[in-house]
Formats: sequence, C-alpha cells, structure tokens
Amino acid sequence: MYRTQNCGELRLAHVGKEVSLAGWMHKSRDLGGMTFIDLRDRYGKTQLVFNMETDKELCGSARKLGRESVVQVQGIVRERSSKNNQMLTGDIEIEVKELKVLNSAKTPPFTLEDDTDGGEELRMKYRYLDIRRDKVKNNLIFRHQVALEVRKYLSDLDFIEVETPYLIKSTPEGARDFIVPSRMNQGMFYALPQSPQTFKQLLMVAGMDKYFQIVKCFRDEDLRADRQPEFTQIDCEMSFIEQEDILNVFEGLTRHLLKTLKGADVEDFPRMTYDEAMKRFGNDKPDIRFGMEFGELNDVTQHKDFGVFNSAELVVGIAVPAGNQYSRKEIDQLIDWVKRPQIGALGMVYVRCNDDGTYKSSVDKFYDQDDLAQWAERTGAKPGDLICVLSGVKNKVRAQLSALRMEMGERLGLRKPDEFAPLWVLDFPLLEWDEETERYHAMHHPFTSPKTEDMAKLDTDPGAVRANAYDLVLNGNEIGGGSIRIHDKQMQALMFKHLGFTPEEAKDQFGFLMDAFEYGAPPHGGLAFGLDRLVAILGGQESIRDFIAFPKNNAGRDVMIDSPSLINPEQLKELGIDLK
Amino acid sequence: MYRTQNCGELRLAHVGKEVSLAGWMHKSRDLGGMTFIDLRDRYGKTQLVFNMETDKELCGSARKLGRESVVQVQGIVRERSSKNNQMLTGDIEIEVKELKVLNSAKTPPFTLEDDTDGGEELRMKYRYLDIRRDKVKNNLIFRHQVALEVRKYLSDLDFIEVETPYLIKSTPEGARDFIVPSRMNQGMFYALPQSPQTFKQLLMVAGMDKYFQIVKCFRDEDLRADRQPEFTQIDCEMSFIEQEDILNVFEGLTRHLLKTLKGADVEDFPRMTYDEAMKRFGNDKPDIRFGMEFGELNDVTQHKDFGVFNSAELVVGIAVPAGNQYSRKEIDQLIDWVKRPQIGALGMVYVRCNDDGTYKSSVDKFYDQDDLAQWAERTGAKPGDLICVLSGVKNKVRAQLSALRMEMGERLGLRKPDEFAPLWVLDFPLLEWDEETERYHAMHHPFTSPKTEDMAKLDTDPGAVRANAYDLVLNGNEIGGGSIRIHDKQMQALMFKHLGFTPEEAKDQFGFLMDAFEYGAPPHGGLAFGLDRLVAILGGQESIRDFIAFPKNNAGRDVMIDSPSLINPEQLKELGIDLK
Repeated sequence: MYRTQNCGELRLAHVGKEVSLAGWMHKSRDLGGMTFIDLRDRYGKTQLVFNMETDKELCGSARKLGRESVVQVQGIVRERSSKNNQMLTGDIEIEVKELKVLNSAKTPPFTLEDDTDGGEELRMKYRYLDIRRDKVKNNLIFRHQVALEVRKYLSDLDFIEVETPYLIKSTPEGARDFIVPSRMNQGMFYALPQSPQTFKQLLMVAGMDKYFQIVKCFRDEDLRADRQPEFTQIDCEMSFIEQEDILNVFEGLTRHLLKTLKGADVEDFPRMTYDEAMKRFGNDKPDIRFGMEFGELNDVTQHKDFGVFNSAELVVGIAVPAGNQYSRKEIDQLIDWVKRPQIGALGMVYVRCNDDGTYKSSVDKFYDQDDLAQWAERTGAKPGDLICVLSGVKNKVRAQLSALRMEMGERLGLRKPDEFAPLWVLDFPLLEWDEETERYHAMHHPFTSPKTEDMAKLDTDPGAVRANAYDLVLNGNEIGGGSIRIHDKQMQALMFKHLGFTPEEAKDQFGFLMDAFEYGAPPHGGLAFGLDRLVAILGGQESIRDFIAFPKNNAGRDVMIDSPSLINPEQLKELGIDLK
Repeated sequence: MYRTQNCGELRLAHVGKEVSLAGWMHKSRDLGGMTFIDLRDRYGKTQLVFNMETDKELCGSARKLGRESVVQVQGIVRERSSKNNQMLTGDIEIEVKELKVLNSAKTPPFTLEDDTDGGEELRMKYRYLDIRRDKVKNNLIFRHQVALEVRKYLSDLDFIEVETPYLIKSTPEGARDFIVPSRMNQGMFYALPQSPQTFKQLLMVAGMDKYFQIVKCFRDEDLRADRQPEFTQIDCEMSFIEQEDILNVFEGLTRHLLKTLKGADVEDFPRMTYDEAMKRFGNDKPDIRFGMEFGELNDVTQHKDFGVFNSAELVVGIAVPAGNQYSRKEIDQLIDWVKRPQIGALGMVYVRCNDDGTYKSSVDKFYDQDDLAQWAERTGAKPGDLICVLSGVKNKVRAQLSALRMEMGERLGLRKPDEFAPLWVLDFPLLEWDEETERYHAMHHPFTSPKTEDMAKLDTDPGAVRANAYDLVLNGNEIGGGSIRIHDKQMQALMFKHLGFTPEEAKDQFGFLMDAFEYGAPPHGGLAFGLDRLVAILGGQESIRDFIAFPKNNAGRDVMIDSPSLINPEQLKELGIDLK
C-alpha cells in the first residue's frame, strides 16, 4: 500500500496518527534547521516537516528533492504551530520518519501554478503537466460532475442512454464528414457521425420513447478559434411530445445543473422568438445579463438630409451606460474597433447625452436636439450615456451592433461569470439562403418540421417558413438546440426536394430513415447540448479548450502525441488507397 | 400533450379517471360486439375497449387499424371483469371515447414477438422494428442500467470520468487500426483508438489519480462471430496502487453490479494463477460454475505400449458426470465432435465407469483395471461417469479438452445463466511467441510491468517472465483485464527493445509517453472491462449482438443504413487520396 490517506484528507482529528502519503514534491522551503515541503496530489497539499537536528540524513535527502519528484513518506501527524487556513490540511503537518523517491522528475518546461508562464503551444505539448495545475484539473473534474448530473437527472426521468454507432455512412449535406476507409469492403468508406441524428430518430421509431447519449461527434471544418474537430454532445430525443414538453424537460435539466453545481436559482426561462431576438439584440443568442437593447431608428433618422442613413435598410443604436465619460480619443478608438474587418462597419455615428439633458452628436449638422431626444428615447439612453448608431443592410448591421454591444458589455463588466441568464429562442426560420451554392439550406437540419401554419409558404416564400426549432441560450452562447422532427415519409421527401435533393439522392442517403417512417413512426423531437461549451459557461469561462483533457490546435493537430501523422505504406496498401 | 399516462402505468386506483394514451397497435381481437386492442409503448401494454353497440363508428375505425399503427386515444379507466395478472395494467382497461391515428404502418416484415420469425439479416435490416420486441428493448435498457451503476459506483469512489480523444495516432503494434485521412494535413492520418491506453497513463502522470471512462474502441480485425469493429470498454486507471488495490476496487464494482442488478450475492472472488487455470481447466478463462476439472494422466498412461499416449506431450482427461449412460453411437458422435476442424483433436480415448466399480475403455488392449482406476482417481470420476481423454501437444490438447468440457457443461445444463461465478486469473505471461512473425509479442500490451522477481529472465528465457497482469473472468468469459504498468522510461525502452522495436520506432510511436515518464510519473495500473460482453453475461446470454443497438454484421457492414458505402469523388479529392 502506497498511502493511508491522500494529500487533502488529514485534519486535527488525525494528530498523533502514523500515516503514509504519496504525491508530488510541489514546493520546498528551508528555514534554519527545518525543511518544509508541500506534498501535492489531486486532492490537495500536505506540509511535510524535516528537521536537520533530529535526522540529518533524512532532512538532507529532502533538501535534494527536485520539484515534481514523486515521493512516498511515512510519518506522524502533528498540529501546526502556525496554522494556514488557506489549505484544507492547514491545521496539521507531517513529521516525516521515512522518505522514498518513487520517481524523479526533470524540471517542468513551465511553472505549474494557476498563473503559469507557459504559452498555449507549450502547455498543449506537455498537457500531462498542464493538467497538474489546479485550474485545468478542476475544470476536468467539473466536467465529470456535469456529465454525471446530466446522466442521473435524465435517467431519473426514464431516459435511456443508448450508444449509437461511430462507423456510419457519409451524407454530404451539412458540414464535411471525416471518413474511414473500409479494408473489408475495399473502395468503400464509413463516416464518423456529425451527430447521432438519424439513429436517435430510428430509436424513436423503435419505441425507445426517451433517449439520451453523451457522445463524441466529428466535423471536418476549417477550425475557427475555439472549435474542435471532435466535440461532445448531450444528445436527447423524445416521442409523443410537443415543443412545450421538450422545453420543460430541458429547462428542468438546466435549472438542476445551475442549482446543483453552481448554487444558482433561476426562475422560469424567458422565451423569445428568433425575430424578436434579432430585433432587440441583433443576435439569435443574446446575452441578457445586461441591457443595451437595440433601438431601431429608421423613422427618426430618415427624415433629414443625411444620405448615409437615408439609404440604409436599417439604422439602429444602443445606449452605452455612462459612455459620455469617454474622451474624443476613446470614441475614435471605438469607431476604429467597429471598422475592423472582423466587424466590418463603415463608420459609427454617436450621440453624447450630457448631464444637463442636452445632446451633442457627430451629426449635429443634420439633426437637432428634438431628433436626438427621440433617439435617446428609442435606445433608452439616460443623461451621461453614449448612443452608438450603425446603419446599413439589416442582417449585417445587426451583427455589427451586436458585436459592439457584447464588447461594451465585456468592457463594462456586465458579463459576470457567476451570473446565469438562460433563455429560449423559438421559431427559427426553417431554411436559410446560401449565397455560395445559390440554394436554400436547412438552418437546423433537414429533419426539422416546419410550422403547420407556414407550410403553404414552402413553395411561394421558402425563406419565410418558420420551423418548430428552438435554441437554449446561456450568457450569450448557444448551449443547446433542437426541433420537432418530421415523422412522415411524404413530408420528409418534400423537405429533401426543397433542399435540392433529387429523389434518388434522398433515397440513397436517407432511404433507411424514410422507409422507417412507414412502419409506425411516432411524433418526436429532441435537442442536443454542446457539452464542451455548456461546461465552460457553467464554469464561468468562454473558451472550451481548457475543459477538454486533450484538445487539438487550430490546425487540427494534437501536438502532444504529434497527430495526424504519416502512416506505414503497408496500411494504405491493405486499404486499397493511394496518396495523390 | 399526447398522453396523460404511459401504457404501463394505469392501475385500479385510476378507475374512473379520464386519460389519454399514445402508442402502437400491438394486437386486436373482435369478440361479438366488442373490439379489444392492446396498445403498446416502451413501458407496457394497456387494453383498449370499443363497443359496436354504443359507438359503432368509433368501433368501426378501431377494427380498421393495422398492426403497429401509431394511435392516440382518450377514454375512461374501467375495472376489468376478467383480470390479467400477466400484465402490469391487467386490472384495468380503457373505454375509449376518441381515437386518432397519428401515423399508419405497413405490415412489419417479421412478427414483433419474443419468438420472432425474423432471421438475423432481416432483423438487422429493420433493427428499428426489432428493438420494439421486449427482448431486445429490455437488453438495451439493461445496458443503460449497468453503465449508470458503473458510473455512480466509480464516481462515489472518487474516480473521474475523463473523455480522451478519438482522433489519435496510428501505432501498428497490436491489432490493425482504423485510420482517418486528414484534409488539413494532407498525406497524414489519424487513427481511431483501439483503447485509450496511452491517454489514461498520461492522465496518471497528470495526477488525475483515479480515472475511468466508458468509451468506444475500434479494431479493424477480420470479424469472428460475436466480435464488432467498434466496441465499448469501461476503461479504468489508478495511481499509487499495487495489484491488490486494483483487484479489490474492481471486485467491489463487480459484486455491486451482481447484487444491484441481478440480486446475486457473491463471496470473495477466487483467485487462480494463469498456470493453474491452464492446468485445471485448459483455459485462461475457466467457467467454474461446474467441475469436470482436468486430470493429467501422463504418468499413469505412458508406462504401457500405447504409442499415441507415449509420444504425447500431455495426456489429459475429464470425467463427464453420468456419461456412462451414453450409447456407443452417442460416444462416437462425441468423438466426431472433437475431431471437427474447429476443435482439431485426432481422436478421443474414453473409459466407461460402470456402476459396479469396473471400467470399460476404448483402449482395454493396453490398459488394465488398475490403470483405469488411476485415471478415474485423477479425473475424479465416479461410477456412472464417462472419462474422456485427449493427448498431444500441451497447448493444443488443453484447448481441445477445454472445448469439450464447455460443450459437456452446456449439454448437461451446468452453465446456468442465472448463476454467477467470477474469478481472478493472475500472473499472466508477459510475452507470447508469435509463430507467424517469429518474435515475442506483448500478451497484454507493451506497457505491462513484468514481475520484479522475473526480470532477470527477460534476456535468458523471455517466455517464462510473468507479468503483473490479471483478468476478471465471469462464467467462462473474460469480462475484464488489466495490469500494473511500467512507469519508468528506461524500463519502457527495454520492453520495446524486447518486442522488436528499434529505438527510433519506439520514439516515433510512443516518444510522448516515454518523455512523460521523465516528469514525475507515479506508479500506476488499471483495468478495462468489455462492456458489451459484461452486459450480455450479466443478462444471462453469451452473444453480445443483441445488447448493441445497431450492431454490424460479420463483414463489418451495417445492413440497415447500408454502410460502408461509396463516397463522392469530391470528398476523396479534398483529402488527397485515390482509390487503387
């Protein structure tokens, strides 16, 4: 036996006991004739004491220990004379009798503290050292707790976790698949699932009624920051339900997670249509922890001679609280910020709301105090605020102003990591127009049911058809999304037609699902959470990478194991494939 | 809302209540003026009643319903006049007021009963119908329960479930990898993990201390019956432990599963060395629910003129209880059975143990009653038994006699599905000789630690070196296996050398692990359970296929979705690969 206790376990009650501990040499201090060592393991740190006077040899060995050496000690638990209430074990220390080095350690390439000097690449290359840092370690433990709570909660509601296959079939609709050559069926390929969508629907046809799975999914996309080629979903599906049932179940789950893991009580989640979210926040995943809602200004800006506004599809502004404190230089920097290519605005009009109730704008030439007062009313600006106004094509200007709103929320400290503001966004459009391919794509996926009342528009005005689709948004991030599905073969065939599939293509790729619909498919629907992001947001962070044990970099590489890599030509030969 | 209750929920207490139910039309009977329908969902069946006299139109619609139609009904719960105590809801029935067909159904291609007329191929093609059968459905629910119990149990012991990557690096040692071409790194490949072995060891170096994961693994092997290219492991690893600690933890887990899910109380698991298991049962995964232990007979058979035995490395027999009842013809069939190519024995000697204490053997020409009495003593044969003796090369003859023992256990009903007999098999050989490549392979894997006391033999007699490796066996199946790992870089390098790796190959494939060992690797070890098999055995079955929602056939195909399949040439082009 290597240890009687772990390094986070000993308390005053253990004083006088003989114990063994094992762990890593975290830190060491020599004070006169004494040497103090913090021994660390996953559970905490415990102070070891060595005395040069009483045991010179042992203390000498302790002084020679390098950082991160793995050691085992035996000794007696003693009460500390100066206690440390920052440490779980701060009331005691171990008077060491025996010390054994289990494994020595080279000096780590970066410091293993919360504030490390290691850059991203170095930390990833030595991820096994990075995880020793409390911050990363605790993120992984938190992820485990979230996943376990999800499983318990859904299981208690009679959901069954069913494992669906990873070696499936390539279906080019949607993102790009990772493919896997088959050796036993040469010239043929499996694909890794982008989601278990069709399988969970088949499980509903199979009568499984309530399904969930925490499952890896794969997308071969060019990676933006904070996207991973493999990611984890909490995938769920239910039968004999309407949208309302699904919202209630998963609102319950989310509320349970917030309460259990974060101690946060959240009332009924607000609901907002997609149209409303776009109008009020310029974004289908608004952060409602703070205001700065959009004020649309077309009718109070387009009656004067200001051509920029008059020619714009949308003129829209927000009121930045206390923004009138900004100097001219700071406002110019803000204008530069919205003009960066990532945001893409052509300029920004601003209005200073003076404390005396007057206004001073960058377009005083065109607008008088009465005009500006109306802008202030629309944007909810109060004396001391700064109104920022953008204009242009509706979709673009909304995205630009939304980016500015989020940036200001961040700068003003309004995006508090320990505050949680979930909401449902409902009634998403069924289809979205793709400029590149010049056709409609499914906004959610091709299995999403259109709203009955909008069905007639499928032929006449496809872009206006709304879907029974919903997103769960938390603190400005989409953490889940789903829809009521089509469960009728004819309806599904019609949908594929609208998405530009020939009947042959539809049959070839999704024939098994449409066939299944003919054997008694129940009404069904579901939702999937992105676990990586959910955990990060619950953990008060927005970057998912430190909630994943072994993430890949933006080039899709695992720099620790050095993958992807060249492979043995024999392997390619067996698979019947050649490199170009 | 589609339903107020599910089809397994209503009891006498609900009588008089108005309810809605939804489900599948399972069966229908017309009795005089009444129509009775069993409505089915995942939770059970409920009897619906329609009366031709009181509501002709409604009853008429009910009579037109096809099997497996999806319907929704509203009605009043009534007490049944003739109760059915075989059904959970057998005390009540629903007097239906409204009936709505939610989806019609074509006639299923096979009957959806426990004893179905559907063959394997048909059931797999329409797996979504097959899962509607109680038998398959209950297997999947059972699998969910096992996985959930495992997670709860290990989490309560402070194990953390950490997700390791699926897109990793190909390492040709061991079985064949499935590979995944990288588009962003053309000419390079990921591999799908055969197990998360190296990652879990890195998590130990990272200080995670106790890890587990229920995880899909992949092997591109020629599939024997009851093997799948993707399978699920309960993968576990611990730090600062010795073999004894691991055995205790996972014996605890297994005992918990047996108790919680099967109500079976099992004492301390017996332990047996690999050598002992081979000697007593001819098998490293003996089924100890029954006896018929091997009796080695070399010294009591090789003193006469019977050349077959005299030239054999091993002569070994078992006593089949009450086997003397077998007719000459039946014994001949048994001899044919062991001579089948799958078993490969050249013949079988037998001894009838008569009730009067005399013996009659097929080799009476060579052996007298005293000889045969000694054979009986060695094999534990009693009057009325039949001794079956095989001879030949030790390893082969053990495998042959083990197959015969298992077959006889099966025929005699000694392999009871509701009886559970776990045991640990310990001290596996570190290496096994591979005839084909003419070199040693790691019997477990290259990270397994040899026993300290056998280290000296690594150079002189590698085949005799024992490993700190152990298997957990249940009812004649290996359900788990693991080892104490090497945690020292030099030792790991030495192991790779013995396995025929050049230093460059070792560095190229496993350099990251050996590097990690230099930064303070703790002593560690672990174990992995095969979840598919564990669940099947706990469920009292030996075939894993019906415990997997969507299994593949022996050619690695999913016949339901028709995968693997041809893919779009554009996809290959993007990946920079060609078909040969």
